[in-house]
Amino acid sequence: MTVAVLLFNNFETLDAFGPVEIFGRLTDQYQVSFYSLAGGLIGNAHGVSVMTKNLAEIENGSDIFLIPGGYGTREEVNNALLIDMIRKISQQSKYVLTVCTGTSLLAKTGLLDGKNATSNKIAFDWVTTQGPNVTWVRRARWVVDGKYYTSSGVSAGMDMTLGFLENIHGIEFARNVARTIEYNWQENKEEDSFCTQ
Amino acid sequence: MTVAVLLFNNFETLDAFGPVEIFGRLTDQYQVSFYSLAGGLIGNAHGVSVMTKNLAEIENGSDIFLIPGGYGTREEVNNALLIDMIRKISQQSKYVLTVCTGTSLLAKTGLLDGKNATSNKIAFDWVTTQGPNVTWVRRARWVVDGKYYTSSGVSAGMDMTLGFLENIHGIEFARNVARTIEYNWQENKEEDSFCTQ
Repeated sequence: MTVAVLLFNNFETLDAFGPVEIFGRLTDQYQVSFYSLAGGLIGNAHGVSVMTKNLAEIENGSDIFLIPGGYGTREEVNNALLIDMIRKISQQSKYVLTVCTGTSLLAKTGLLDGKNATSNKIAFDWVTTQGPNVTWVRRARWVVDGKYYTSSGVSAGMDMTLGFLENIHGIEFARNVARTIEYNWQENKEEDSFCTQ
Repeated sequence: MTVAVLLFNNFETLDAFGPVEIFGRLTDQYQVSFYSLAGGLIGNAHGVSVMTKNLAEIENGSDIFLIPGGYGTREEVNNALLIDMIRKISQQSKYVLTVCTGTSLLAKTGLLDGKNATSNKIAFDWVTTQGPNVTWVRRARWVVDGKYYTSSGVSAGMDMTLGFLENIHGIEFARNVARTIEYNWQENKEEDSFCTQ
């Protein structure tokens, strides 16, 4: 399966690289590539600078389209060209996974309207304004609605990605990946110790 | 504090970017930069390609020198030029943090001789051959010996980095960072559910 990771300026480091660690190590089954609106180097406030391909190179969607969050989303929700690209690629992709405030970008396309979704807890109220017709689930580590997987804040993206592997390959496969990276996977997507409301 | 992250071909994605997420978001206190032996783009099998500066630009060590692991360490332990640079920079740095098989590179310099250290569980026996005079601690999430912090596999690097923050800023500071990234921090460094021996 192809995994297309969207990057934009000031993406959140772990939102992207947590899931990339998990998909990336399964080289027989998953092939990860990074994309951005213009291609080239994309950086963030953590000092990270990553090489990306141009989003236009994704011609018929991706098996998996991964959208991280980060402070950059505050600007990118108003980037009509990017939102249009996200809409088109998401419609054509088999699965769309968002992490943290990355959900705001997908919500903005309208594709989550009438669907269940979550986002991180600190920016939750802002994210929900980007999709007033989404059925927002505040208390959730991650939420699955059809082909759309949305997760809570930053680290929750790893739990969601393992949950995705569980749905595709079975729970023992996912547990084995978690063990290999010595990750304490929170298997229950409905448990959310970071939700205080 | 300056955080110099060493990269080399086939570094493990999360070994580097887990700690980078944690230090990187504390922009008032930590400044993260990436380095490699020759500078330029450094890639790995996960499809990641990151821009780095040349290690020679680190003139008098770094406050924190972070060494990730990954399959690339199998080759790099035999790269005398790199090991010499790691030795020099580690001697000059205030703290040296290694993640997973990154410990093998530091062990190879001899600087861990007579010190306590750990590494990931699957490659543990190989890593220990790189430092026969190190006091290897198999059962540990991470180990602190003076200025040297060494961690178990991949995800353990995040727990160790939060443990480092605890030692510098106090446990409430570290817990607050963990909460912000919705990370279930394993606070006890001696607990190791991935150790089967």
